[in-house]
Amino acid sequence: MTTPLRIALAGLGTVGSGVIRLINENGAMIAQRAGRPIEISAISARDRARDRGMDLSPYKWADDMNDFAADPGVDCVVEMIGGSDGPALDLARNSLKSGKSFVTANKAMIAHHGMELASLAEKQNLALKYEAAVAGGIPVIKGLREGASANRIERVYGILNGTCNYILTTMEKHGSDFDAVLKDAQDLGYAEADPSFDIDGVDAAHKLAILAALSFGKAVDFDGVEIAGIRDIVAADIGQAKALGYRIRLLGMARIDDGKLFQRVNPYLVPESHPLAHIDGSTNAVVAEGNFSGRLMFQGAGAGDGPTASAIVADLIDIARGDSGTVFAMPASKMAASERAESGNRTGKSYIRFIVADKPGVLAEITAAMRDAEVSIESLIQTEKTNEGSVLISMVTHQSLERDVIQSLEKLSDSSSLQGAPVVMHLLSDED
Amino acid sequence: MTTPLRIALAGLGTVGSGVIRLINENGAMIAQRAGRPIEISAISARDRARDRGMDLSPYKWADDMNDFAADPGVDCVVEMIGGSDGPALDLARNSLKSGKSFVTANKAMIAHHGMELASLAEKQNLALKYEAAVAGGIPVIKGLREGASANRIERVYGILNGTCNYILTTMEKHGSDFDAVLKDAQDLGYAEADPSFDIDGVDAAHKLAILAALSFGKAVDFDGVEIAGIRDIVAADIGQAKALGYRIRLLGMARIDDGKLFQRVNPYLVPESHPLAHIDGSTNAVVAEGNFSGRLMFQGAGAGDGPTASAIVADLIDIARGDSGTVFAMPASKMAASERAESGNRTGKSYIRFIVADKPGVLAEITAAMRDAEVSIESLIQTEKTNEGSVLISMVTHQSLERDVIQSLEKLSDSSSLQGAPVVMHLLSDED
Repeated sequence: MTTPLRIALAGLGTVGSGVIRLINENGAMIAQRAGRPIEISAISARDRARDRGMDLSPYKWADDMNDFAADPGVDCVVEMIGGSDGPALDLARNSLKSGKSFVTANKAMIAHHGMELASLAEKQNLALKYEAAVAGGIPVIKGLREGASANRIERVYGILNGTCNYILTTMEKHGSDFDAVLKDAQDLGYAEADPSFDIDGVDAAHKLAILAALSFGKAVDFDGVEIAGIRDIVAADIGQAKALGYRIRLLGMARIDDGKLFQRVNPYLVPESHPLAHIDGSTNAVVAEGNFSGRLMFQGAGAGDGPTASAIVADLIDIARGDSGTVFAMPASKMAASERAESGNRTGKSYIRFIVADKPGVLAEITAAMRDAEVSIESLIQTEKTNEGSVLISMVTHQSLERDVIQSLEKLSDSSSLQGAPVVMHLLSDED
Repeated sequence: MTTPLRIALAGLGTVGSGVIRLINENGAMIAQRAGRPIEISAISARDRARDRGMDLSPYKWADDMNDFAADPGVDCVVEMIGGSDGPALDLARNSLKSGKSFVTANKAMIAHHGMELASLAEKQNLALKYEAAVAGGIPVIKGLREGASANRIERVYGILNGTCNYILTTMEKHGSDFDAVLKDAQDLGYAEADPSFDIDGVDAAHKLAILAALSFGKAVDFDGVEIAGIRDIVAADIGQAKALGYRIRLLGMARIDDGKLFQRVNPYLVPESHPLAHIDGSTNAVVAEGNFSGRLMFQGAGAGDGPTASAIVADLIDIARGDSGTVFAMPASKMAASERAESGNRTGKSYIRFIVADKPGVLAEITAAMRDAEVSIESLIQTEKTNEGSVLISMVTHQSLERDVIQSLEKLSDSSSLQGAPVVMHLLSDED
């Protein structure tokens, strides 16, 4: 088979340019590995005039990327424009309906419309691939869909957002507070001007919903992810976690609880003995625990043009090699929607931190509320004055129902002693 | 496609039994993922009478496993008997020649005969798969062959032997010496009665040769691996490495140096900031550095019946899904033998440790030999009395040609001051 796989690129930002660079640089080797060349046949982007630092004249330009769908010179469309709906989704639908394979880096679109697109692709025996949508250059979609395919996956979880991990581990290293590190990260280009998608956990939730669908064979359910971000974490939280032998990481966590799908993005206290505790900076890492494989972990760069291009072209090589098979680990038609597990039913240890007025009786008030909700305290880690003259109180509960923890905090919600909402994080355990 | 993939199992030790258990336990899910069931059609082992704790009556028994080759009821033969030659190799050849796909956990056979078997398989468009041969349950063959396939791999390296890593990290944890930990490991069943294959680095070298062939597209060259094991490492080495900010790990390391293949298994000093420094116990981990992906790491259980069965059945699912393609990352016919790079030409920092008689002038003798070979010393870490009244001297060199380091030690080879051969380890760096 030496007919080239002819691809069309939609979007020529850093990722799109990275794909062109990769194919130019590694093309001969790729042709040997794929059994045939991968050839860029057409390109499209919003602004044709923009200087992208490379010669685009060899490639056919399309003013409207939807022309790819009707182009007999295109076998596969690669989407790198982003956005869960709008032009990206139109392009995906048009391309698949016209019999083109489709490769995308678009986690939001797969998280929201993955089932529809997978059905479209599978009905026509077309490939729909999205390795670049989760954890950048790390081949974790392949790792779950194929590498771990013999296993019932018990849990899938990990560090799915590099910006958050960069912020948390920089806070950890320098003892600095969230706002200062975020500002530095923005100045360095590690965080967006509007960082909310990252730091509020939405980006991680998109990826988690995809990983969960792959792992458990349930329909992608982004709306079922409970989401909390890292905005409210202060340097003292990290210090107190450290004193307990933990590091704070924003984790996406998915598992099946009594037949129901549990999905959560939340900061966790990760024991230092766990491999995720050693993932620093903007690195991503995904853990899958299989009933035969045991714990597998995949780590690497979660973003960037090189890693993302690496994942996109790996998908293209798979297509060129004739990889068929389903979009997720099993046919989309068999992936039923799952009931959602309630986090309140879960049991575990929680870290709870309050900022309170520095006056007598506050600790009594807090501990009474917890007693009334039947939450028992394993350790009151430390109370510490803040710069503003308030006091920071942190504690770790014994194994408790999460519902009871929430209830204890609700009892305190009207308290005039509390300054701001308490922060709750879970302690990652093997049973979590 | 609902015709089952009918497999025959050769070898019913812990791994073979694990495969049966896995297929029985996860079979329904596997059928959904693979698009068709995987059905055990025939089995064979040396001793039919042995109690394997399971009912084998549903499976056709073959006294001679070579009967599988002629059996029209078998699509794929799974080899779990081991040994680079002899019955395993006969079975591989017979099966492939008779048009059966072949799945094996046999690293020694692939390291020695991988090219011959790959050619046989590719000529007939048959699958030959060996995920279980390297790093147990970790899908690293797939990770390199497919996940990282868009990249020119700069280096591939890792912790490839769980027994050695268990011994080294236990020594690290408890400050104990090699012999004591090895004995414990043997008592616990973590090390073989004859542990030489593991602790002398041969097992890691088998795996490294396979990873190198996959990564660089060169013919498998097991004989080209420079091999040293961990027998001579003492607790003081680990302590002194730690004082420098390093952990000692037995690594397999492969890369292309000036177009030539460099392959080595040797203990390395791994900086604490490197993810391999945090791989403890019998866990394996493989790092691949791609020119676009950057550093990828895959970690998990490197041995055990569950993880090995997980890898074998993942291969079977691939075959059931119709995965075709080459045995390594490119066709065997295009994988030329590579020239071998000489380690003497490499530059880096080395850790050198001597045990010497406790008498005047010894340090002068050693440092003079190093000066004469143009090896300059960055730090003399520590001198320490041993229990036997000798002195242990360790040092780290500046960046040096490895040839010069070897030469300096040759100058000392006749010295009456040295008690035993010096131990040399390399400091892992980003340029290594």
